[in-house]
Amino acid sequence: MRVGVLTGGGDCPGLNAVIRAVVRRGMHDHGFEFLGYRDGWRGPLEGVTMPLDVETCRGILPRGGTILGSSRTNPFSVERGVERIKQTLADDGVDALVAIGGEDTLGVATKLAELGVDVVGVPKTIDNDLSGTDFTFGFDTAVNIATEAIDRLHTTAESHHRVLVVEVMGRHAGWIALHAGMAGGASAILIPEQPFDIERVCAFVETRFESEYAPIIVVSEGAVPVEGGEMTLTSGEKDAFGHVRLGGIGDRLASEIEERTGKEARAVVLGHIQRGGTPTAFDRWLATRFGLHAADAVADGEFGTMMALRGTDIVRVPLAEGTGELKTVSPEEYAEAQVFFG
Amino acid sequence: MRVGVLTGGGDCPGLNAVIRAVVRRGMHDHGFEFLGYRDGWRGPLEGVTMPLDVETCRGILPRGGTILGSSRTNPFSVERGVERIKQTLADDGVDALVAIGGEDTLGVATKLAELGVDVVGVPKTIDNDLSGTDFTFGFDTAVNIATEAIDRLHTTAESHHRVLVVEVMGRHAGWIALHAGMAGGASAILIPEQPFDIERVCAFVETRFESEYAPIIVVSEGAVPVEGGEMTLTSGEKDAFGHVRLGGIGDRLASEIEERTGKEARAVVLGHIQRGGTPTAFDRWLATRFGLHAADAVADGEFGTMMALRGTDIVRVPLAEGTGELKTVSPEEYAEAQVFFG
Amino acid sequence: MRVGVLTGGGDCPGLNAVIRAVVRRGMHDHGFEFLGYRDGWRGPLEGVTMPLDVETCRGILPRGGTILGSSRTNPFSVERGVERIKQTLADDGVDALVAIGGEDTLGVATKLAELGVDVVGVPKTIDNDLSGTDFTFGFDTAVNIATEAIDRLHTTAESHHRVLVVEVMGRHAGWIALHAGMAGGASAILIPEQPFDIERVCAFVETRFESEYAPIIVVSEGAVPVEGGEMTLTSGEKDAFGHVRLGGIGDRLASEIEERTGKEARAVVLGHIQRGGTPTAFDRWLATRFGLHAADAVADGEFGTMMALRGTDIVRVPLAEGTGELKTVSPEEYAEAQVFFG
Amino acid sequence: MRVGVLTGGGDCPGLNAVIRAVVRRGMHDHGFEFLGYRDGWRGPLEGVTMPLDVETCRGILPRGGTILGSSRTNPFSVERGVERIKQTLADDGVDALVAIGGEDTLGVATKLAELGVDVVGVPKTIDNDLSGTDFTFGFDTAVNIATEAIDRLHTTAESHHRVLVVEVMGRHAGWIALHAGMAGGASAILIPEQPFDIERVCAFVETRFESEYAPIIVVSEGAVPVEGGEMTLTSGEKDAFGHVRLGGIGDRLASEIEERTGKEARAVVLGHIQRGGTPTAFDRWLATRFGLHAADAVADGEFGTMMALRGTDIVRVPLAEGTGELKTVSPEEYAEAQVFFG
Repeated sequence: MRVGVLTGGGDCPGLNAVIRAVVRRGMHDHGFEFLGYRDGWRGPLEGVTMPLDVETCRGILPRGGTILGSSRTNPFSVERGVERIKQTLADDGVDALVAIGGEDTLGVATKLAELGVDVVGVPKTIDNDLSGTDFTFGFDTAVNIATEAIDRLHTTAESHHRVLVVEVMGRHAGWIALHAGMAGGASAILIPEQPFDIERVCAFVETRFESEYAPIIVVSEGAVPVEGGEMTLTSGEKDAFGHVRLGGIGDRLASEIEERTGKEARAVVLGHIQRGGTPTAFDRWLATRFGLHAADAVADGEFGTMMALRGTDIVRVPLAEGTGELKTVSPEEYAEAQVFFG
Repeated sequence: MRVGVLTGGGDCPGLNAVIRAVVRRGMHDHGFEFLGYRDGWRGPLEGVTMPLDVETCRGILPRGGTILGSSRTNPFSVERGVERIKQTLADDGVDALVAIGGEDTLGVATKLAELGVDVVGVPKTIDNDLSGTDFTFGFDTAVNIATEAIDRLHTTAESHHRVLVVEVMGRHAGWIALHAGMAGGASAILIPEQPFDIERVCAFVETRFESEYAPIIVVSEGAVPVEGGEMTLTSGEKDAFGHVRLGGIGDRLASEIEERTGKEARAVVLGHIQRGGTPTAFDRWLATRFGLHAADAVADGEFGTMMALRGTDIVRVPLAEGTGELKTVSPEEYAEAQVFFG
Repeated sequence: MRVGVLTGGGDCPGLNAVIRAVVRRGMHDHGFEFLGYRDGWRGPLEGVTMPLDVETCRGILPRGGTILGSSRTNPFSVERGVERIKQTLADDGVDALVAIGGEDTLGVATKLAELGVDVVGVPKTIDNDLSGTDFTFGFDTAVNIATEAIDRLHTTAESHHRVLVVEVMGRHAGWIALHAGMAGGASAILIPEQPFDIERVCAFVETRFESEYAPIIVVSEGAVPVEGGEMTLTSGEKDAFGHVRLGGIGDRLASEIEERTGKEARAVVLGHIQRGGTPTAFDRWLATRFGLHAADAVADGEFGTMMALRGTDIVRVPLAEGTGELKTVSPEEYAEAQVFFG
Repeated sequence: MRVGVLTGGGDCPGLNAVIRAVVRRGMHDHGFEFLGYRDGWRGPLEGVTMPLDVETCRGILPRGGTILGSSRTNPFSVERGVERIKQTLADDGVDALVAIGGEDTLGVATKLAELGVDVVGVPKTIDNDLSGTDFTFGFDTAVNIATEAIDRLHTTAESHHRVLVVEVMGRHAGWIALHAGMAGGASAILIPEQPFDIERVCAFVETRFESEYAPIIVVSEGAVPVEGGEMTLTSGEKDAFGHVRLGGIGDRLASEIEERTGKEARAVVLGHIQRGGTPTAFDRWLATRFGLHAADAVADGEFGTMMALRGTDIVRVPLAEGTGELKTVSPEEYAEAQVFFG
């Protein structure tokens, strides 16, 4: 049996660990041959391949990124995309695909599965917002990087009596903010799921200064103020300290806090450093196990499924289930963190 | 309500995070007062206390160790131990206890609960071998430290064409070896649950050298050779390269591999560095949540329970359940890792 | 003898290590008493003090920030500032001052020394741009943090075929960019000392992509384009990919590269995480030695001097020498890095 | 011109950075061709080579180990060794050699230079004990790893009221112990240069416990007790707590302290993890600059020299000077650290 492997969407520590495990398990225990497709769905679409075997995968376990490359190419937005993919797989003698990716990549996989392509999915999102699985790999690495950054910022905040706003990833779900904020001892955590009241945030800031500790506010890039409680400063204006504030929620929030509390505030936008580099042990372990079980699912002919973590077990769930709904932070989970606000 | 808190047993990153969360939640949301008992069960036994409130807990979240101190004192091995503990609690006006510890500490808690002491437990073991919970805090930190060490040793092994044996913690269960070995790309992982065949280990070593990569063997301190397959060298003898090999399984194994394969082998015993220092984000998050829920359990009067992680939920299980049986690596879980051996 | 200690200017890992060493050496070997002045020159100006002895300094060696607090208060911009400082010192019975700080703080110290205040200086700048000393503490920590970030970004750059621009600290001198860029394997390093030609930068980007590796550009916050070679995009405009680019040199550079090369480019601004948190071993060692020697200088009555590293020796140089001139990257040093450009 | 490159002796983070820099500079600026010799002097002795160019060196900057492999082969202990090396170089058309290594490797280079081989040396020792240079690469990495380990052990020592002995590398010189001990806040540092008095060490232990902090003792593997002050326990005996103590100085010291003070003591032997893995930024910078200047020295025909760091300058010194004498910790440098003992 010949199996194609591809990785799609944004960078995520652990991708290489999945690839290595799929290949190792597939070759050793199931007698598969492998073919690597480059740059996500662009690979099978345009027939761009690379050899993939145990030797190719040597030494990649601790490396960030993906040896297969990635892209956001969507075959359903390309003329005759599906047809071309089927043709490539036929030409290459590829019987089944392992697709590693997030909502978009697995969304494509779901539709292809319905159209008769034999595909098994491995969920990947640094944001941890895929339903159907307790955790996705890459998330733990991102949370640790953000937590380390918060640890470092505490001393600056305290030495300078400043407010520090840390903007972390999370467009639609606040998981990174929630976990890193709890682990880093944030004074407030603002997430997309729950619009924030700027006045309450400023009250936390004041409280925190009373106890001689300076506040750290952790905010998801997708967090928004409550309606009617709109923040007054917009991009490009000068705030109370004469800084021109621009860009994303982190910068705007720092600006607004400065304006309202009279305390100097600065934003740090962690950005891409959250998604690169060597994965944590947890992410390597999870990614490796996803890979092993994906190879088994192919061997079992259980196509149209994706791997999921439930407790400490890896299970197979229908692809549609994993990508149908966004997993967001529940009010109860958010309430846990709020005990530490202020 | 007045609540006593104590930490018992070996050092474990995350203990301070539990203490901080119990206190914060208890004071803010349940109106509790707190009293810290020093050095595990010695505290309530001898009436050694320290003040414990939100202020005492400032800044401790990222710190390893425990501000309460620890010991292995067992009140059941001390004359009139239980009686004395009850008397101390009465004298101190303490209505309930939160006991944070491993098998021994929670074993005592279980018996005290049966004898009428109102106690809630928080499980703690770096070895992750407590049943009833998916993970314990401290484990993720230990695994990351061991994985980083393995990452570093790979380059030495390869540059010098040497075998490196890494001895990690785990007297009765191989969790740290399993996770760190998988995350670090070990050539073999030896755990207490499955006695190892030295000849097979040596075969992995040979295979590995054929592929131009040098082998790393990860071994739990509690691993043993299969019966009849006893290793020939004992402590104090000189091996093939003239090194006197001594001490634990790591050193003896390196010695034996050298003797049998003729390849130079060295052991690294990670020891105490696995259990100290700042916790990972995962461990801080888990410890914090255990603390929050323990305070709630006290408020609910659900004594005789301990906190447990199930998937991403914190649940309460009977203390006896958590300490009754050791959680060990199953043959299936071990088989997953074996795909990478050699 | 009674000695006051203060820390001024921006946060810098190693400040606490200096304080601890001054105090330890002063108390143990010279019989000094100590008094801590809070928040830089504000302390002696307004008489805000804290106790300072061996006990106060326990456990602070690995901590970032400064237990004394900091500020940018300049007594020469305050009415009767010098007079008030002299009065405070007299009132507190303080015979000599140890001032730990950068250009501004030591500039004040220099003038106060000329006006008869017995002061010894310890140089501090994360930017490493104080003349008279080979290195300043905090710099090595900042360079390591920036290097780690670059390490992480490599995998994202390669997996996504993207240009990544990393903006590091360095308003007037390019030391952090130079060291982190060399250590991180940057494709180009842009520093304030040498205005950059945007066309040459874009040529490096193209070359780099030809070799299948994606480029990382490291840029000091104070870097500027050559005259006449001005970049076309200004804040607030949309670039080739429709991103609104704003703010500092990092963002503008990414935007300009995108516009000119048609390759997607992103900026990461490391900001405050470069100056907080635990110091590296080098910075702890250097800071500790600066502290020990500063206490000795006070004992020797060698006022008006500051500590400096020359090779592996700590020497005393006149305060004026250390603060008179900015230490910048020489053309020769910059040329070394250029071998790796492209 | 054709230049051979080899790396000899023990593993040391930064070796790959040197190789990459030599090659890059040599090819780009001097038009050299390169040939890699494998496994130290074994390469030119037996004619074992590998291709070496800019492409071979891609991505190796952050990697520990050496892509050329290493060994301790000494051509002067091999029949007709020198003759054979000269023959290999002639056969391979190699005009000059860059030898990267420690005392042994450079000792061979020194003699070969005297016998007419055109060789330039790059000093390498994790122990930092080569005279002629302020620092060698790899040392800073080792010191940081040891310091991090000490940081982690502090919390265990304190939570358990235990003595922790940390054995670090340094057979003949105490640099790693001195720097890591100072950076980690050790209660005592024992180095080969100054035999220790076990009674004084125990006095430090007692003092430390009085202040409620537990002691960490850092000891070089080559440290020895003063004559007449011999330690009583030898390998294999049981100490006060019934532990059988074996092996090196770390274990024996812990045992002796337990016996004499009645405090529980444990040893941690860091071993090989000090010499593997990714180099620190400082080591990458130093190694890279050594490489650049070595290529220049070849271009200038300045054979028989080795590169050295003096302050922040890279200079060329005669090979004999760098290897003639061991650089050890002076009594003055050791005295600085002693301020913190106890």
